[in-house]
Amino acid sequence: MSLVRIHNFSVSLDGFGTGEGQSLESPFGHAGQRLHPWMFATRFGREMLGQEGGGRGADDAFAAQFMPGIGAEIMGANKFGPPGWQDDADWKGWWGPNPPFHTPTYVLTHRPRPSIEMEGGTTFHFLDATPEEALAVAREGAGGLDVRIGGGVSVVRDFLAAGLVDHAHFAVAPIVLGRGERLWDGLEGLESSYDVESVTTASGTTHVTFTRS
Amino acid sequence: MSLVRIHNFSVSLDGFGTGEGQSLESPFGHAGQRLHPWMFATRFGREMLGQEGGGRGADDAFAAQFMPGIGAEIMGANKFGPPGWQDDADWKGWWGPNPPFHTPTYVLTHRPRPSIEMEGGTTFHFLDATPEEALAVAREGAGGLDVRIGGGVSVVRDFLAAGLVDHAHFAVAPIVLGRGERLWDGLEGLESSYDVESVTTASGTTHVTFTRS
Ligand SMILES: NC(=O)c1ccc[n+]([C@@H]2O[C@H](COP(=O)([O-])OP(=O)(O)OC[C@H]3O[C@@H](n4cnc5c(N)ncnc54)[C@H](OP(=O)(O)O)[C@@H]3O)[C@@H](O)[C@H]2O)c1
Ligand SMILES: NC(=O)c1ccc[n+]([C@@H]2O[C@H](COP(=O)([O-])OP(=O)(O)OC[C@H]3O[C@@H](n4cnc5c(N)ncnc54)[C@H](OP(=O)(O)O)[C@@H]3O)[C@@H](O)[C@H]2O)c1
Repeated sequence: MSLVRIHNFSVSLDGFGTGEGQSLESPFGHAGQRLHPWMFATRFGREMLGQEGGGRGADDAFAAQFMPGIGAEIMGANKFGPPGWQDDADWKGWWGPNPPFHTPTYVLTHRPRPSIEMEGGTTFHFLDATPEEALAVAREGAGGLDVRIGGGVSVVRDFLAAGLVDHAHFAVAPIVLGRGERLWDGLEGLESSYDVESVTTASGTTHVTFTRS
Repeated sequence: MSLVRIHNFSVSLDGFGTGEGQSLESPFGHAGQRLHPWMFATRFGREMLGQEGGGRGADDAFAAQFMPGIGAEIMGANKFGPPGWQDDADWKGWWGPNPPFHTPTYVLTHRPRPSIEMEGGTTFHFLDATPEEALAVAREGAGGLDVRIGGGVSVVRDFLAAGLVDHAHFAVAPIVLGRGERLWDGLEGLESSYDVESVTTASGTTHVTFTRS
């Protein structure tokens, strides 16, 4: 069965998934890199940046679940680009010619544009659709494999609130971010539909997984 | 040196330290007992309720740090009683004749009343004072020992925001509470003045400690 999965979604102790003031220079606003240091210290994270090395411990074990079994990603407009990208006909995402998705990737936006085929198997499609509708399209594109909800914060929240997510992995960074976009808002009682497990790793990150029960 | 300490302060994944709708029947509002099951499963928690048994593992190790070295507690009016207690001349706290503090205990309130001597060494004093002023009074009362900031949420937040806390222990319960009083608001960057450690125990609770660096 094709599952809907979330991976490597970092959140602060106070529940923010991104900082205030997203821009071209600061994709995570005032949070900078502070939500994701755990990931970029892993083998998986380094490889994503085209670098060697990185840890192969528990953080890497979580991080590396990102890819296997995934046939498509759904993301929000604010993950795809900084404020204003929709006015730039040439914007093709943050990730260069060969984005780290390697599958059809569906960008939810109220201003859709024609699809963009990238290197390495990533094609960006643009959809103005409800979460349910977008998921149906992405499942087609995934050819029987799983669909990843890639973020940003509000899209993750919307898919969780709609009860569409089968497995979610959050990495809680031990910081008080103070402002930005809140992940947990509107998700009261989320734990009641899931088996929840937590583990803290040597980096001080607490990995919390929700698996549909 | 006399330290200022916080212990066993439970908070949800989404950062709430109590639920909505505090009342005589529901001291934690709609949160019920869901923030503290980890504590009441320990030997320490059972003993507090006058019961036998309870676990002696990692949760108990954290919980039992509550008492040693403490010479006074400071708490807020909403921890001392439900909304309206200030209109009840006979209200003496939730805890019966022998409260689990066993030291002078300072209740911050805008409507102070005469002190109340209880059994077992607890005396409730009522103070209308700033955190700094209250701490000076509590330090006197503590006779050189440490001062515990006992809660509720807004008092813990106020003392942290004022930079008065040397050590804080939070127990993150793996639930999305959704509404209530937010612990982390106004504490952006708190981690930068502390060494932060996290560990998840078998109960699924993540204990996060802030120790002044
Ligand atoms: N914490 C992490 O691990 C993580 C992971 C990924 C990204 N992020 C960060 O998250 C931030 C972005 O999150 P965000 O919450 O600001 O925004 P987002 O979820 O990326 O995107 C929200 C936007 O997508 C469009 N959209 C969403 N649902 C739609 C629907 N059903 N139909 C049509 N359009 C829809 C709307 O944009 P329009 O109306 O403008 O079209 C909406 O404003 C970025 O800072 C990113 O770096 C964090
Ligand atoms: N999560 C945990 O582990 C934990 C631990 C303990 C308690 N709690 C819960 O926390 C809740 C109470 O927290 P809360 O945030 O609602 O309230 P609180 O922090 O207990 O009390 C706040 C109140 O104390 C008085 N106060 C605070 N600072 C003052 C000052 N400097 N001068 C004079 N008065 C001052 C004010 O009351 P007045 O103006 O009315 O006098 C203020 O509204 C309860 O539900 C309790 O069960 C949770």
